[in-house]
Amino acid sequence: MTHEAQNGVLIGATRKSFTVSDLARRLGAAIEGPDSIVVDGLNALDLAGPTDISFIGSDSYAARWVESKAVAAAVTLGVEVPGHDAAHRALLRVPNADLALAELLTLFAPVVAPATPGIHPDATIDPTALIDPTATIGARVTVGAGTQIGARTILETGVNIAEDVVVGDDCTIRAGVVIRERCVLGHRVSIHPNSVIGSDGFGYRPDGRGGMQKLVHIGIVEIHDDVEIGACSTIDRAKFGKTVIGAHTKIDNLVQIGHNVRIGRCCVLASQTGLAGTVVLEDYCQLGAKAGVADHRHVGKGARIAAMTGISKDVEAGAELVGAPAADRRQFWLMQAALRKLPELIKTVARLEHENRRRDADSSSK
Amino acid sequence: MTHEAQNGVLIGATRKSFTVSDLARRLGAAIEGPDSIVVDGLNALDLAGPTDISFIGSDSYAARWVESKAVAAAVTLGVEVPGHDAAHRALLRVPNADLALAELLTLFAPVVAPATPGIHPDATIDPTALIDPTATIGARVTVGAGTQIGARTILETGVNIAEDVVVGDDCTIRAGVVIRERCVLGHRVSIHPNSVIGSDGFGYRPDGRGGMQKLVHIGIVEIHDDVEIGACSTIDRAKFGKTVIGAHTKIDNLVQIGHNVRIGRCCVLASQTGLAGTVVLEDYCQLGAKAGVADHRHVGKGARIAAMTGISKDVEAGAELVGAPAADRRQFWLMQAALRKLPELIKTVARLEHENRRRDADSSSK
Amino acid sequence: MTHEAQNGVLIGATRKSFTVSDLARRLGAAIEGPDSIVVDGLNALDLAGPTDISFIGSDSYAARWVESKAVAAAVTLGVEVPGHDAAHRALLRVPNADLALAELLTLFAPVVAPATPGIHPDATIDPTALIDPTATIGARVTVGAGTQIGARTILETGVNIAEDVVVGDDCTIRAGVVIRERCVLGHRVSIHPNSVIGSDGFGYRPDGRGGMQKLVHIGIVEIHDDVEIGACSTIDRAKFGKTVIGAHTKIDNLVQIGHNVRIGRCCVLASQTGLAGTVVLEDYCQLGAKAGVADHRHVGKGARIAAMTGISKDVEAGAELVGAPAADRRQFWLMQAALRKLPELIKTVARLEHENRRRDADSSSK
Repeated sequence: MTHEAQNGVLIGATRKSFTVSDLARRLGAAIEGPDSIVVDGLNALDLAGPTDISFIGSDSYAARWVESKAVAAAVTLGVEVPGHDAAHRALLRVPNADLALAELLTLFAPVVAPATPGIHPDATIDPTALIDPTATIGARVTVGAGTQIGARTILETGVNIAEDVVVGDDCTIRAGVVIRERCVLGHRVSIHPNSVIGSDGFGYRPDGRGGMQKLVHIGIVEIHDDVEIGACSTIDRAKFGKTVIGAHTKIDNLVQIGHNVRIGRCCVLASQTGLAGTVVLEDYCQLGAKAGVADHRHVGKGARIAAMTGISKDVEAGAELVGAPAADRRQFWLMQAALRKLPELIKTVARLEHENRRRDADSSSK
Repeated sequence: MTHEAQNGVLIGATRKSFTVSDLARRLGAAIEGPDSIVVDGLNALDLAGPTDISFIGSDSYAARWVESKAVAAAVTLGVEVPGHDAAHRALLRVPNADLALAELLTLFAPVVAPATPGIHPDATIDPTALIDPTATIGARVTVGAGTQIGARTILETGVNIAEDVVVGDDCTIRAGVVIRERCVLGHRVSIHPNSVIGSDGFGYRPDGRGGMQKLVHIGIVEIHDDVEIGACSTIDRAKFGKTVIGAHTKIDNLVQIGHNVRIGRCCVLASQTGLAGTVVLEDYCQLGAKAGVADHRHVGKGARIAAMTGISKDVEAGAELVGAPAADRRQFWLMQAALRKLPELIKTVARLEHENRRRDADSSSK
Repeated sequence: MTHEAQNGVLIGATRKSFTVSDLARRLGAAIEGPDSIVVDGLNALDLAGPTDISFIGSDSYAARWVESKAVAAAVTLGVEVPGHDAAHRALLRVPNADLALAELLTLFAPVVAPATPGIHPDATIDPTALIDPTATIGARVTVGAGTQIGARTILETGVNIAEDVVVGDDCTIRAGVVIRERCVLGHRVSIHPNSVIGSDGFGYRPDGRGGMQKLVHIGIVEIHDDVEIGACSTIDRAKFGKTVIGAHTKIDNLVQIGHNVRIGRCCVLASQTGLAGTVVLEDYCQLGAKAGVADHRHVGKGARIAAMTGISKDVEAGAELVGAPAADRRQFWLMQAALRKLPELIKTVARLEHENRRRDADSSSK
């Protein structure tokens, strides 16, 4: 059974199938086994069924091949696969099984019906908005005054875009996303469901009467080309000027980006990370899950910050930091190893002290 | 004043009332005090008003009874309650006050009007979707092609379900939830507002031109019977195969579950926890708030992981872990106690060293 | 180009402009430089363009004035600004540049069209709901039976408010927010997109058959006047009684507030913080990003809890705590400094031990 797509979303309950020789040709692989085997899915070695292809990138995975039900596997050249039965199963030798995985995922992806450009009758589009005729606007979408939506961009059901926003070409804005006024998105930007772009930054000052006065946030969020943002993430607008997400940067789910943050190109922020106000990340930084950076800190190019690390000082380019408070990765693990010895060390020092006292007593009694 | 319910949601501004003898009968309790007192609510000892019942499960709570305004309390058998005035207030003796609380919450819950099955005229249902006639579909719900909605299931206002999804019987999917294509939910699954099921996993590889190429995620999310998922949580679809949430598992708000995670039965994940890609939790694991597990880690049956703990290695069944990096609970607190003594220890060692130098000087001068 | 606003949201693509003498008059500032310069925006020193005003609150910022392109700056009295060219650029001397910033943000904020009171034809309002005629109800809003919406309150597109809710006057409830049944909001409450108020608390007990039974949550959430809540935050309803957010408290994005929490006045909770069930925060507490407080803990008035701190014990009024597990701020940094010396200390102790062994050997051989 196949279905027509809504808003260009993936459909296709049908699995695709390929022969091993088909796959080998597409991957540029040499075959060890029957080339006529039909494969209709892919999975990990331990989860694969008898019509699936799997992946072997190292000796430890190769050791599981005998017990796997998979009928084929992409194997990195040079990895020995013990117990392979070439009469009934096929190995496809490739330079790199991980890269082959990426190709196979694309091959086996369910059929996508092309989006049907146009504006759903149940969308609310301000008459001054400029919607490219090739864009696809789903049901219950709101687009505010003066907002521009680019070519082939898809706004899924229930997306809410405020006034004077610019969304570039070939963007995918998924269900429930809210983009507030005057934010600017480049081309090929993808935002997953229920994220919020352009919410007010978090800034107050005492109002002198025991309460707090809100700082007006008049800036915007600017998202460059090829950025992807996960589900339920929040990117605050700048107090003034702009919060910037650089080209090709990838942001996971439940991430918080504060006001006036500036992120460079090709950064990777794993889920539940948080950047406080006015943080700068230079290009190619990587932050593990739940990492945090304090306000106004500057993180140099290519820094790698481990999961759950807390950054409260500027970080040099290329640094690798771990822990809260953060330390150089090597130093962090040295300290942790030392900490494990600390309870014993305390006893040792007590004994040394006792021995010294005893010596003092001995020598004074002589 | 009572109102008709929308979508079977709780209504009922009216408080219910019961006599102490009513309550005692339902709880199987012995009464110490007047049995005709009327109770119309329940609350903690310090917050209860003069028509409320409260709870006493230990001596420390019992000590607060005299000052509480509550007119009655469920008390665990054997707990002595000093100063109880049995002429004016009632104690209900039960085997376990905590379990009695669960029963009383159900008793005092506001009246729920039964859901009115049917499809709201302002919902958008694909003609190929199969909606059970006993299901209740709210306003502004979208249901995609080929999707199945089970008996007595409620989709609240603004729920967005994509193509080829299966939702079982007796599920409650609350406002603003997004479920993406081909995900499968069992029976009695409850999902709270604005959560996202089936968002793409977070996976890229360098594209060789300075950018990053997205890995297509062709897998799904499979949620088994009796699972509850909180508000604003995100569960990513598998790269291939499926992300699995086992039966009876309970997931709190703002939780991130990565692609290809496999969670067993009856696990409990408190708010803001995060599981990276391909993590396995066996049955009966418990994770405290803000805990995190690194990708590909395996957590054995019944492991208990404290709040804010970071797991970067496999965890044995039944282990109790605390801290980031995680340590055995007992060892963690030993290390923390030792750490508190460390500044003093450094001084002690310096003194010992000084004494040794002095001794060396003394002996060489002899 | 200006546009009509939807729901009173900011519009205004036009920048406003002021002369330096205008600004000086409004700020009560003395001018050092030409008073006729026209300023049409504001930004940080390094990002400002040639028609922007910027801010100098300290010597380190003053040192950057020469290289800034800003044409004017608000400068705290007494801060010396080296290299200032008063022929072409203007300094505005104010008592406090930070406070001047707040004023300037308000001055330069884009024009807001007044909200157009009334109910959008595409909203779904229960006939028993009481909507003040001055309120503005956007498209695709749902308001349940018995719910009251106050004067001048704005419900943006897609807001979902259940039954028997009370929303006070002058509130702004932004797109996609869900407020569940019987919750009560005061006046001037602001809630940012996709947050959830009144979701069920997280409470279960073993059902005796290998599964878990959900505790019914019959309480509510009560939010007092002048509270602001960020985007994608979740505030759980009480098990019984109420979860309370005190007046003037400010809560950032992605924050979790558990059932039965009681927060006092003027607290500040930065993003991704979490309070477990039944926590009490007294007035004026401040929690840094990603901080967490364990269930039933009591945090005294004015406590300051650093980012990523984990509170597992009660906290005294005015305490300053850092770390997980939390320690007094001064003690925490002493311990961290000591920890950095620990690997070396272990070597020192080993040497001392070796020396003692040698001495013992020496003395026994004598």
